[in-house]
Parts: sequence; structure tokens; C-alpha cells
Amino acid sequence: MASELPSMTLKAIGIVRSELKQPARQDCKEIVSDIVIDSSLTEALDNLDDFSHIIVLYWMHRATNRQVQTKVRPMARQEIPLLGLFSTRSPNRPNSVGKATVRLLRRQDNILRVEGLDAIDGTPVIDIKPYIPGYDSVTNAKVPLWITNQ
Amino acid sequence: MASELPSMTLKAIGIVRSELKQPARQDCKEIVSDIVIDSSLTEALDNLDDFSHIIVLYWMHRATNRQVQTKVRPMARQEIPLLGLFSTRSPNRPNSVGKATVRLLRRQDNILRVEGLDAIDGTPVIDIKPYIPGYDSVTNAKVPLWITNQ
Repeated sequence: MASELPSMTLKAIGIVRSELKQPARQDCKEIVSDIVIDSSLTEALDNLDDFSHIIVLYWMHRATNRQVQTKVRPMARQEIPLLGLFSTRSPNRPNSVGKATVRLLRRQDNILRVEGLDAIDGTPVIDIKPYIPGYDSVTNAKVPLWITNQ
Repeated sequence: MASELPSMTLKAIGIVRSELKQPARQDCKEIVSDIVIDSSLTEALDNLDDFSHIIVLYWMHRATNRQVQTKVRPMARQEIPLLGLFSTRSPNRPNSVGKATVRLLRRQDNILRVEGLDAIDGTPVIDIKPYIPGYDSVTNAKVPLWITNQ
């Protein structure tokens, strides 16, 4: 089947500027970063600040040099058994696209200041979408114990 | 700045099989589809069914032939003024990556049966992630009136 699966080329629309310089297993909820969007797309950011939160898709460029493992131990927690890669948020994926939901603090021209982005300084940004609760969130979602116990 | 922005190549990990054959502005919440993942990645789907919902990143292949407009009218609703592209979920984006949160009905080997996926038959899938409420959802998110009035 692999031979039938298409490839596609993406071009970054911007870059993250953050105090986070290395990938870290830390809580990023309070980190403030700037997303600098290519100035040719400044106008496409209009009206975004009518939303309190945005979804950022980004390219986890540091993760792409490693070989992908189909079984991983999330966050290197030894008490968790090996899990299927797609049941985790491990950055080391076949396509290293990260997805974060962050608070939009301010938009100024082509720069978005956001809170809670877990992407390191220099991360290429692929897309920005408005966060729409009725579409993006789920009530009463079920998760396994290794998530609730972290 | 555009010249500094990197490009990256993605390879689809699977394909959507759906009764939805054409892009439609319809409510897809009840549509049941199958995501057929490349069989080399079957093992990477283990443990995913411990989650009730998953996030699907996909390539909106029908949208990529059109020229990107920085201002759009969402869902062709004439009563809405032109809005900045990134404040909408228009598929016609610089990088046509779609993101949907769907209910996982069943995983059988390399096939995920899901409910609520708004991707048409044949859509290439880029990534599958578990939906984690504390990370992926926001309480009291603010959205503009054109969202709440739809």
C-alpha cells in the first residue's frame, strides 16, 4: 500500500520565537512566544483576534532526524508500558507535525503573541486556525489512566 | 522573509474511505468513515482505542489547485464581510492541512472507523493523535458572532 500513498510539499508560513530553546518535558502553559508570519500573509491574519484561542500546526524539526519507532514510552516514563506511537503525542512521528491550542494574547501586524505554545525557538509554522469550541472540543472524552495520572 | 522559510516533505500514512465523495458544506457529525493506515504502521495504532476521540490531520488535496486568497468569505455566506484567511477554516490555505476531532468507533488492525470526519473519500491522512482534553480543549473560549450565529 505504501507505494500508493502520496507525498506533499509544505512551505512554512512563519517561525516561532520563544525563550524555549530546547525540547523539554515541561509544562508550557505559561510560556509566552511570538509567531512571526511571513509578511506577504499579514492581511490573512485580519480578524483572528476576534478569537481568544488559536490552533497552531508546526513542524517539529528537531524530531525529524531520528528513526521512527512504532512503539514508544511516553515522556520516558518507565512505569508506562510501550505504547503504539499514534496513541501518544511523541514528536518522533512519520510526519512530525505538532498541534497546539494556545491563547492569543495580541496580534500586531504579522506577529502573533501567544501563551502556552510548546514549540521551541525557530520552529517552522505550517498553519494557524481559529479555535472553535463546537468543532474542536469534545465533552466527556475518555482517556486512559496513564493520561489522567500524569 | 519568505526565502528563509523552510519547505518540508510529508508522506501520507493512510487514506480516508468515506461516503462523502465531494467537498460539502454539510454537517458531518454523523458520517462514519474508515481511515486505512499503511500496514507497515499497524503496530503504531496499538492502545489508540483506549481513547474515545482522536485528532486526524489530513491533506485537503482538492483545495491545493486553487490560488490562495488572503481574504475569504467563510462558507460563502454573503452576510459575512471578507475575513482574513487564518481567522477561518477555509480549506484553501497556504498549506492545506485539515484538522478534525472525531469519535473513534473501532480499531481493527490497520483500519480506524471514526464518526464525524469531514474529509472526502480518498483524502490522504498525515497524522493521527489521541485527543487529550486538558491539552486540546479550552474552557470559555471567545469566538466572534459569525461563528455563534451559524
